[in-house]
Parts: sequence; structure tokens; C-alpha cells
Amino acid sequence: MKFLSDNTAPATPEVMAALQTANQGAARAYGDDDWTRRLDDAFSRYFERPVRAFPVSTGTAANSLALATLTPPYGAIYTTEAAHVVHDECGAVELQSGGARIVTLPAPDGRLDAAVLERALADTVVSVHSHQPAAVTITQVTECGTVYRPAQVAAIATVAHARGLPLHMDGARFANALAALGESPAALTWKAGVDILSFGATKNGAINAEAVVFFDTARVRDFELRRKRAAQLLSKMRFASAQLLACLEGGFFAANAARANRLAARIAAAAGPRLLFAADANLVFLKLAPAEAAGLREQGFDFYDWGPPRDCGSRFAVSWDQPEADVDALCGALRAWS
Amino acid sequence: MKFLSDNTAPATPEVMAALQTANQGAARAYGDDDWTRRLDDAFSRYFERPVRAFPVSTGTAANSLALATLTPPYGAIYTTEAAHVVHDECGAVELQSGGARIVTLPAPDGRLDAAVLERALADTVVSVHSHQPAAVTITQVTECGTVYRPAQVAAIATVAHARGLPLHMDGARFANALAALGESPAALTWKAGVDILSFGATKNGAINAEAVVFFDTARVRDFELRRKRAAQLLSKMRFASAQLLACLEGGFFAANAARANRLAARIAAAAGPRLLFAADANLVFLKLAPAEAAGLREQGFDFYDWGPPRDCGSRFAVSWDQPEADVDALCGALRAWS
Amino acid sequence: MKFLSDNTAPATPEVMAALQTANQGAARAYGDDDWTRRLDDAFSRYFERPVRAFPVSTGTAANSLALATLTPPYGAIYTTEAAHVVHDECGAVELQSGGARIVTLPAPDGRLDAAVLERALADTVVSVHSHQPAAVTITQVTECGTVYRPAQVAAIATVAHARGLPLHMDGARFANALAALGESPAALTWKAGVDILSFGATKNGAINAEAVVFFDTARVRDFELRRKRAAQLLSKMRFASAQLLACLEGGFFAANAARANRLAARIAAAAGPRLLFAADANLVFLKLAPAEAAGLREQGFDFYDWGPPRDCGSRFAVSWDQPEADVDALCGALRAWS
Amino acid sequence: MKFLSDNTAPATPEVMAALQTANQGAARAYGDDDWTRRLDDAFSRYFERPVRAFPVSTGTAANSLALATLTPPYGAIYTTEAAHVVHDECGAVELQSGGARIVTLPAPDGRLDAAVLERALADTVVSVHSHQPAAVTITQVTECGTVYRPAQVAAIATVAHARGLPLHMDGARFANALAALGESPAALTWKAGVDILSFGATKNGAINAEAVVFFDTARVRDFELRRKRAAQLLSKMRFASAQLLACLEGGFFAANAARANRLAARIAAAAGPRLLFAADANLVFLKLAPAEAAGLREQGFDFYDWGPPRDCGSRFAVSWDQPEADVDALCGALRAWS
Repeated sequence: MKFLSDNTAPATPEVMAALQTANQGAARAYGDDDWTRRLDDAFSRYFERPVRAFPVSTGTAANSLALATLTPPYGAIYTTEAAHVVHDECGAVELQSGGARIVTLPAPDGRLDAAVLERALADTVVSVHSHQPAAVTITQVTECGTVYRPAQVAAIATVAHARGLPLHMDGARFANALAALGESPAALTWKAGVDILSFGATKNGAINAEAVVFFDTARVRDFELRRKRAAQLLSKMRFASAQLLACLEGGFFAANAARANRLAARIAAAAGPRLLFAADANLVFLKLAPAEAAGLREQGFDFYDWGPPRDCGSRFAVSWDQPEADVDALCGALRAWS
Repeated sequence: MKFLSDNTAPATPEVMAALQTANQGAARAYGDDDWTRRLDDAFSRYFERPVRAFPVSTGTAANSLALATLTPPYGAIYTTEAAHVVHDECGAVELQSGGARIVTLPAPDGRLDAAVLERALADTVVSVHSHQPAAVTITQVTECGTVYRPAQVAAIATVAHARGLPLHMDGARFANALAALGESPAALTWKAGVDILSFGATKNGAINAEAVVFFDTARVRDFELRRKRAAQLLSKMRFASAQLLACLEGGFFAANAARANRLAARIAAAAGPRLLFAADANLVFLKLAPAEAAGLREQGFDFYDWGPPRDCGSRFAVSWDQPEADVDALCGALRAWS
Repeated sequence: MKFLSDNTAPATPEVMAALQTANQGAARAYGDDDWTRRLDDAFSRYFERPVRAFPVSTGTAANSLALATLTPPYGAIYTTEAAHVVHDECGAVELQSGGARIVTLPAPDGRLDAAVLERALADTVVSVHSHQPAAVTITQVTECGTVYRPAQVAAIATVAHARGLPLHMDGARFANALAALGESPAALTWKAGVDILSFGATKNGAINAEAVVFFDTARVRDFELRRKRAAQLLSKMRFASAQLLACLEGGFFAANAARANRLAARIAAAAGPRLLFAADANLVFLKLAPAEAAGLREQGFDFYDWGPPRDCGSRFAVSWDQPEADVDALCGALRAWS
Repeated sequence: MKFLSDNTAPATPEVMAALQTANQGAARAYGDDDWTRRLDDAFSRYFERPVRAFPVSTGTAANSLALATLTPPYGAIYTTEAAHVVHDECGAVELQSGGARIVTLPAPDGRLDAAVLERALADTVVSVHSHQPAAVTITQVTECGTVYRPAQVAAIATVAHARGLPLHMDGARFANALAALGESPAALTWKAGVDILSFGATKNGAINAEAVVFFDTARVRDFELRRKRAAQLLSKMRFASAQLLACLEGGFFAANAARANRLAARIAAAAGPRLLFAADANLVFLKLAPAEAAGLREQGFDFYDWGPPRDCGSRFAVSWDQPEADVDALCGALRAWS
């Protein structure tokens, strides 16, 4: 029973169908195709305002390229100590930006606090000797499984914008955040001050398809050139675009995220005092004794321990296609301890 | 009737079937899955020796990451003046290598001549003030549609290796080269001295799936870290790997390339004196008068003019699924002029 | 009365004389001159073993180029939270290394503790997703004015080397550290496990002349190419080399450092409980109330407040040529408060 | 008798005197000193308009940092095939720019022809796949010893500016160009359309002191941060600034350049048909038979052969302090052949 990550899941039937439909006849390469041409419109409808959107093949690509458009090579990017861009991208941001510095701030439950950011920026001595504050990035759903409310995002954006720093959101699990909050995509992003979004589809049922969405389109040309140079301009882009269209336009995308969230909530409820963070979405972090973790593994549960330096216990990720029975079994095992 | 590029074609049925087969149940992410685990074996059989192979999503990724493992940031990479890495990757090699210099050599029919390389290297004054010769890269099928014979590759490798420079082959159309020559994959690569290959599948029927193949595995760990950092470590890697396995193990891959080559040969034959280069594979370059090009376009033929600085006329690329009727029509139109 | 920094001081008479002596007739450029040719020997005598030494024009150049030879672009470099490479080089390490990550560890008095380093390395989850531990760098004299004993350096080196990480020392104030400890240059460096040293001369009386000293010469060629590429291969290198020779071979260099240390010790003694860190060398950090700091400034004392994020109070740096009277006056002012 | 390069010469007495004068008492570091503060004014008077000027320690630093402010990392910089930035900076431009491409154009006598540039730009197919034209750089005095007339510079600037490309001038031997033409600094630079100048002092009698001069000050802040990050923000900057002030304000700078030019002209006259390029300034290129070159060396003349790939014969560089007798002897030797 696999709770390792939501990216272990297969693609949804709707995504597979979209691939089949897109696989008809010739289509110009590099995005000059009917599917990609429809993307901006589809994302603009989704976000209730004009946006520009660009497919890439990984979340790391989305994050590092989005941030590279926001910072000079001597810039500093503010984020949390547990952020994906810090620990799990092997220096992608540094590569794409030409050497920008990521500055990490404490965030006990994974969420950057606007006041913490404000203080950090106020305390930063900026001179020609130092990195120049350039951008802020937050992850929604956070790496601890918590979710930012729109007001929390807005508070961060206010602090950032007051100093001229744009706000990027790593939305690898954006659909799960939406489902958790019952908010509109607009409310969670540009209405709260987000300037650029990494829109994740892979973890919720697509195949290596993410998008970078620009609410502020001034940096779009720079992004397009950086994307090509980063080897992320897919030649047969229609296949990525078709998947993204299916996710935006099919009800399955929201429904699958909501289902995964509901299953995660059941696990969290069963975990009782072992729950480390509010399981707002589809990730559940538990503080398990070594014997408990071993016991679960013996019973066939697969999950990751996220020890130091991030020390957030054992993570159970619920996928869009997670069998209900897996969750029943896990809840049973957890309840058996109390 | 589209002759724009072979990457305008859809995926082959076999590739689509492979995607469907791979889309079953959970599989660990980032390559720790059954399909990716089989890749090294499948490529080793294909090349008749132990190799390591790594999927990436674009040919630009394959080339730039392969070359980045071969050069220090102050290295010089020797290639031809028409090479894809020079004109069509927006600085990907420079990005991934940290600033290496690409040195271009004249190659009237697209093929680097070993003697030209030898002379260029002999003439290069290497000191602490200059870039340091680091690697050689050639494209097979070349950007002019010609194909290197194994002996030509071996001659280049001999010159390169004599100076300690490894040889990379950009095999975006490797299957077409194989079909053109009737040689084994081994004969065209490591037996001729190739150290690293960008193995192309996309242009011959896959969906954004290429592989970097290491015949010399000393640099593999460095590559793996560079691939991750370059945002090319696909989380749902099984889908890329499954495609590559299908291409390696299914007869369709060779058959489709051979078919495209045959159709291209018909066009070349019909073109008569307008043919610019030997149409060894699936690319045909014609010298057309402006009125001729316009006339073909009026008749519904789509193709690119590759004017200066590369000045190789009008390119007709034949895809794996090119309708025979397209070729009949084009041959007819060309013959009508003579 | 300037206590801002030791780099506000002029050059010593001996350095000026060395410049005059070097200014005779023609000398080949880029280090192929009599002065530079003598450098390796002079440094080898100074360090009592064969070394290679290379002049550069700034301490930032010395540090960033030394570290760039020790790390791949996806490497992690471990240091303290107050380190110069973190706060005062505007991303030079990131630039020269192609994007390496600097990881900061707590060091309450400026000195990296070997046990803290050991724990941090042990806690680091290294995978293909993360930066790869690559090097350790410490500053001697530290940014808090404290000095590492040889045993402390050796403990760090033991931890670092056990994991294959080389140890770099930023010796911007190396002469002051030597004077503070009464140890030999060898004892403080390679005998304690230092692999590469940034040897500082500027702060102790030279003019924009530092040297990178390699105890392990395997990386020398890479360094030389990186130095040129970084625009640090001085054409009239004899003038930098002549200064370094004077510093190594003249007694003044050690004597000036010792004098500055003694004056600093007087200030520290006068400061009483306001002293924040042991004033081992020529830097004194005081915790001053805002009114106290203002009062000192009114009396004509110039110094920096190093508030957050480094929060190490007010720094008084004693230069090699600091007038004794400045120190008398400062001690008087400090004692007047108690 | 050394004709190797003008950077083999010592510093002029006036420069040494300026160093001595600057070596008085304390001065704030990093340019916050009386000498550096006067620089902008001094350069503004020299150029007859407001400019900003920044000292760096090498010509490579000046060029690579100036160009880095003009190009995105995916930019293309146009220059001549013999340019210093191409052959003699080991990738400094690529490093500082984050990977920009240098595009070389034929220039038989070292001077970029505006029409050649125009054609190259017109022929460049710019798309998202290619580098983006970003800047033009020319060298004055050229690497062949020729000098651009103001009208030639203006023609290049017109072509460049028409496409939005700024023009940089590598003025490593700017004083020699001025002396050759009898033009004002203004006429040779901004009045002819130059946007940024690398102003060389080292080759005409200073010690590792160059300046980047901005006629268009919009990019100044970016430059300042890049300079620091590149380790070129000298802590004891007063010593570089004092030299530059002496060069700008003392008559010796122009006089020395004029003297070197006159001596070079004598050599050129003596060389007769062996002269390869117009010896406009202080560099003379001769086509010598191997026996002739060997003969000169036996007679004690030191000079460089610049063979392939630049193939500009044997170069004789006249320094500001070149003994008249050296030139007499060389002229005699050359005349003896005819």
C-alpha cells in the first residue's frame, strides 16, 4: 500500500484520453499547435483574467524558470526552510538564475508567516556587498501538508510588494489546495497578490506536465527564451498542452484532488496525537516511534521518513487513485495503537 | 502536406500502446520503476555492450547535458557551423556547461571532416588565456541530411581522442542514420569511437522522449546530478522509459525510419539538379528559386527555407507517418519543372 | 579616529618600497616575471613545505576562486552563519562555482565547531535531489574577531576529510591570527588539515594583493584557468607579487599584526562587560547602548554597527598604522562609563 | 629588446607619484574615498559630458563586466574574429554574462565594417530557438594595430542602435588611438555612438588599473553589483583611482601614447613590404619568413608570433618607455633586408 508520493500514481483516464485525441495527424512543433494555442484562453478562464501559460515537463523546471525571470544573478529569493526549491531541486534555481541565493526563513508548519518575512527583510542590510532582495516564493500546499488561506497569501504579498519583490507560488499541489479551501483559483493567486504560479498537474493525474502561469505578463518574453535555453521547450508540445487542457476543463481534476484530501483527512483523524501538522490537503505527517514506523512497514505500508534536517516525521501522501482500502487499512493500523 | 519537420508527426501506435501499458497502478517516481530499471539492459542489448542510459524530455536537454559532463566551464567544444547546438538551442550548452565555448568548423555538406578538425586543433593556440579544447560533437543524421559512415566517425574520433577530447554524437535522427547505412547501432557509435550519444526517439514516433547513452560510464554520476539540477529528472519517468523500451524493442522503430528514408529518396530523385546534398536519410534540401518555392506552397506543400546564415535552401522533412500521397504529389510537382 | 576597518589603512613603507623596486624596466606580463617566479619558493619557505601560490586582487576573488576549484556546480559548501562568503561577496562564490550552495551553521562566537559540522553532515540527506556536500570553509581570524586554535582547525579538518570534503581557510587576517597564537604558518594551516588558504595581505598593509595558496596542488591547473576567466590574471603581476614577497620576507608583516592585536587587546580590556567576543586579534566587538554608540561617534570615533542579521554589536577594527593615541582615547572613553 | 607587449613596461613616474600621494592616512574602503569620489568628475571633464566611471583591475574585467550589463544570458554579442574577448579572456564574457554567445565577423584589418555587421544582423534568423542579438563590441586600437576613425565607429553604432543593440568599445589602448587620430575622447566615443567604454590605463603606464565608463548611466547599478560579485570591487580602491586620475589629468598620458605611436611608425616605415596592417598606433604587425623572425630573435629582439587561428604575423608592441635605441636597432635590422 503505497503512500510514498502522489507522483507514484498513474495518469487519470481523462488524461490518457486527451493524449489519444491529441495524437491525430501532424501538428507544428514547439507550441505552434491547436492545443497549445488554446492554453492561454483556458488558463485565463480558469483564473478569471487574462494570463499567459507555458507548459514544462517538471515542477522543478516550473519553479526554477519562474524564479529565474524574477531575479538578477545577484538576487536573494526568500522562502521557508522546508521549501522544495531548497532541498529537492539540486540547485535548479541557482542554475537557471545564474547564481541567485535562496534565503530560508523558519516556518514551523510549513507556511511562511508574513511577519517573519517582514522582519527578515527589515533586518537585511542591503549594500553593494550583499545579495539584493529579489523575490519571494511560497509553496501551496506546503511541504508540511498545510494550506495557505487567501488572507495569508495576501499578507505575504503585501510585505513583498511593499519592497518591490514579486511573489511566486509553487503550486505543485494547487488542485489539492483549491479543494481544501473551497476557493476559486483566482482567489488563491492573483487576487491575493501572486505574480507567477507553478501550476502542477503531474501529482494530480497528468504525465510530466506542469505550467508556468504569468499574471503579470511583462516577463513573458524573457521566460520564453529561458525555457528554450533550459531545454524545456517541448517539440511535441501538443501532448503536454492537451493534458493541461483536460485538467483545466474536466471536472475530474478538482474531484480527484477533493477525494485525495478526504482520504487524507481520515488518516489524520485516525492518527490522533501523532499528527504533526494540520492535514489540510492530501499529505499527512505523523510523529512515529521507530517501532511504530517499522510496524507499519511490516504491514505493507510504504511511506517516507523525513528526518533531519527537515525533521517532519513520516509522510503519507494520498494519490488521486489511492484505493479506499489502503486508507481503511492504515486508519485501522493507526487506531489500533490508541 | 506537411514537410516541415519530423517532430510534427504524432506518436506511433506502438508508443501509445506502451504508454497505456505503463499506466497501471503505482510506480515509484524519478526512475525507480520497472520500466526505467529495464532501460540499461535494453540499451545494452541494442548496443551490444554494457551502457547506461537516461531519459530526458528534449533533444536539447540530451545534447546540452551530455556536453556539460564533458567540458569544464572554460572548455571549447568543436562542431560544425550548421550544428543544432549552435543555432537551435538558445544557449543551452552554455547554460548547462557554465559558459563553455562552441567552436564551429566549416562543413559544406554538414559532415565534420576529420582533417578539418585536425587542422583546427593543431592551429589552436592553447594557453591560460584561451578556452581549453574539451570535446567534439557531431550530428547524425547531419543538419544537411547527410549521414556519416562509420569510418568517417572513426576518423573524427581518432583525431579527438588523440588530444584527449571525448566524442559526442547528437543522434536526434539516429534511427534514420541506421536505416540509411544498414549498420548496427554499435558500428555507428562506440565501435567508431563515440563516447556519449543523444539517442533520439521523438522525431521517429515518440512523445518528448530522448535518452543520453553513456558508453564510457565514468561520468554517469555527474550527469545524474546535472540532469536533476537541469529539471530533467522526470517524476513519472516510467512513461518516458516505456516509450524508449518500445522503440528499442519493437521492429516498428527501424521500419518507420526506413520508410521515411525511402520516401525522402524518391523526393531527392525527383528533384534532379535542385538537390543540394545527398539525401541519405529523411531530410531533403533543395535549392529553389523564390517562384518555385512559392509555387510549391501554393500547391499546399509546407516546408522551411533555411536561408542565411546557414543557407541550405528549402528543407523537406519526411515523417514516419508521412502519407505516400504527399510524396507522390511533391515528386510530381518537382518533376513538372524539368 | 577611524576604527572602521583595517582596509582603510594605507600601505606600509615596506610595501611601497617593494613597488618602487619592482618598477624597473620591462618584465613579462601575466606572471612570467622575476617576482612572481619567486612566489612559490617564498610561500613554500613560509609554510615549510612545497606549495603553489597565486596572486589575486581581492579577498573575495581569493575565496570565490579557491572554493570554485573545490566544488561542482551542484555542491554544498559548509560554513558559519556570519561568514564573509555569505554576507559580503554579493554571490561571488555562486558566480565562480556556477551555482554552488553555501550552507550556514550556527557559530555563536564566529568559530565553526567541529561537532556542529559533524552533526550537520550526518543529518544531511544526500540524494540526486539535493546539493552534494563538497567543501568546508572557515575564516581565520573569524568575523567575530576570535581565532581558531590549531586543534580546533584540525578537528574541523578531520570531520571534513572523513567525508571527502576539502577544507578552505579564508585568511584575510591570517597575519593577525598568527600573531595572536604565536604559531607557525604551517601549524595553522596544512598541519591542521587546511587544503587551500586565502592568504590576506591587503588588510595588513598591502595594496589589493592577496594570494591563493594550495597545499594540495592537484587542483592548480583548474584554478589557473578559473583565475584567468575571472579576470584576476593581472597583466602587471610583478607589482602584486612584489608586495606579497615583501610581506612574507619582511619582519614588518608579523610585527604590524602583533601591534594591532596588542592595541585591540587594550580596547577589549577597557570595554569590560561590553565586550561581546574574545578579542583574540585586531577586531573588538562591543555591545553598546544606542546612546553609548552615539556618544562615541560624537567624540570622533568611527566604527560600524553590525546589527541583524548578524547582530554582533559594534565593531572596532585596529589597523596596522592605528595611532596609539586613537586607542588611548577610545580606552579612556570606554573606561569613563564604568 | 622587448617588443612583446606594452604591458611589460613599468609604471610611469607620475603614476608612482600618485600612489605615494594616495598613501596618506586612512581612507574608507570600497571606493568611499576622496580619490574615487573625484573620478566621475575627472572622467566627465575628459569626455565633456556627465559620465560614471568605475575602476577595475584588468582589461578582461572591464570588458566582461561591461558586456555582462548589456546582454541577457541568452544574448549574442557581435565582434570581430580577432577580438580580445574571443581569444584572450578564457571565457570571461561567458562567465560574467551567464553564458552569452560571442559571434565573430570577418575583419581583415581588425576593424569591424559597418556593412559586414549590417549584413550579419540582417541574415540572422532570430527566434525563440536562437541567441538574441544583444550588443556589439569593438576594440580601439584593434588587435591588428589599426584604429577606427570616428566616422567608422559612428557607422557601426548606427547599425547597432537601429536594432536596439548598444555599442561597447574595448579601449585597452584608448590613449594610443586618441594620439593616432588627434581626436578628442568625446569624438571617439559617445559622439560616435559608443555606450560603454573599457578605458585602459595599464598598457600606457598604470599598474593594473582600468575603468569602465558609462555614457548611458541606466545600467550603472547593475554594473556595480556585478563588479562586486565578480570580486572587482577593490577594498583599497583609492590606489586604482589615484592612478586613473593621474592619467586623466596629467599630460604624460597623452604624450607617452604619442611617443609610442611615433616609434611604431618608424618601425612600420622600416618594414617596407613586410608590414601587414597600417600601424596606426603602437602595434606593428610584420609578415616575416621563419628565418627572418629567427634572425631578429638572435639579434635580441623579443616579440610574439601570432599564427593561426589569427594569423597576423609577428607583432611588435612599443611601450611608453621603449628605449629609442631599441627602435633604432630594430629599424636597422629591418632595413638591412631590403
